Amino acid sequence: MQLLDAMKWRYAVKKMNGSKIPAEKLDAILEATRLAPSAFGLTPYSIIVVEDEETRKKLQPAFYNQTQVVDGSAVIIFAAWNSITEKEVAEYMQDIADQRGVPVESLNDFAGYVNGSLKNLTADQARVWADKQTYIALGVALAAAAELEIDATPMEGFAPDAVDEILGLKADGLHSAVAITLGYRDAANDYLVNAKKVRRINEKLIIKK
Amino acid sequence: MQLLDAMKWRYAVKKMNGSKIPAEKLDAILEATRLAPSAFGLTPYSIIVVEDEETRKKLQPAFYNQTQVVDGSAVIIFAAWNSITEKEVAEYMQDIADQRGVPVESLNDFAGYVNGSLKNLTADQARVWADKQTYIALGVALAAAAELEIDATPMEGFAPDAVDEILGLKADGLHSAVAITLGYRDAANDYLVNAKKVRRINEKLIIKK
Repeated sequence: MQLLDAMKWRYAVKKMNGSKIPAEKLDAILEATRLAPSAFGLTPYSIIVVEDEETRKKLQPAFYNQTQVVDGSAVIIFAAWNSITEKEVAEYMQDIADQRGVPVESLNDFAGYVNGSLKNLTADQARVWADKQTYIALGVALAAAAELEIDATPMEGFAPDAVDEILGLKADGLHSAVAITLGYRDAANDYLVNAKKVRRINEKLIIKK
Repeated sequence: MQLLDAMKWRYAVKKMNGSKIPAEKLDAILEATRLAPSAFGLTPYSIIVVEDEETRKKLQPAFYNQTQVVDGSAVIIFAAWNSITEKEVAEYMQDIADQRGVPVESLNDFAGYVNGSLKNLTADQARVWADKQTYIALGVALAAAAELEIDATPMEGFAPDAVDEILGLKADGLHSAVAITLGYRDAANDYLVNAKKVRRINEKLIIKK
């Protein structure tokens, strides 16, 4: 589907039908999401993919019992870094060097620029900044899912500490920032399925200056 | 272009060639962006579109003289609400009622739910929350541009107060959160054009649990 049509087609599904997404579609969504833009290309987060039904059942209470968590096919949790230090930046520079086949020293200026920018942030600001980057990936993931006619529910409404505990994210230096459930709409039982999509009227939302 | 191919094709362009984007492509990108998901559908931001060359010249110093601002075709500034009160929520409910042709009173439960959720946030948290919503729209805009083979540079590096001043955003209760320049790459003069796209390696970025 063309992206604009896909954006009209999609909505935040409230009831899913329990069907599984084909593996190749899930992989395509994850690959598009992996390529999402990120400041400096740093992607200060991990994308946690939970298909396992038992784990999704454990997660459901932490998502205030939203049914999509179990009636969907996969829960994707965007988990941001708890802190960003020169160590993580150095690892990223090594990734660039390896993938581009250049000496890591050739990236010293870039590394200095990234480290310099991040040093201007307090720990709280760095956490907010990392969280914001996950929202870019969320936007791309939702667009990618819709293009493939996979339904999705973006989810901010969860207890992050409980999710982190269930998935053991703290040990990985991560915290859950935002999530999506992917699956298929249960058209017969979703009260939103026929509701006209509403956005604030154009003149308030898009302003030409 | 298919979205996955488009995500591989795009990169944060460092040098643009001064060509204008066709109006129909800009409109399609803006329409996809307008439809971007947002918590409660509230879209607590405006999307400021600056095509005018004089205004872009004025903006350039506030963007630390990045050349894309003038060599691109349009600067899109995602400007979040400075505060979110029951007044904005009520206006949104009226938008829904008007667009769905239902009495606004039928949305009282939903309005109460939105107001209740937002009341849990401090003023600072509400501002961060609104800013995060703009990053979803940014992600969708970048995907939509790439699908249409329009180049883009996502931009966090600007002086927000200066941008707000030049565009008179404060009077509209807005502050600039993040931006994109849309245009066409200057392939002969962009040092990044042939650089292999790098993301952190898969096993670090995507974790299956």
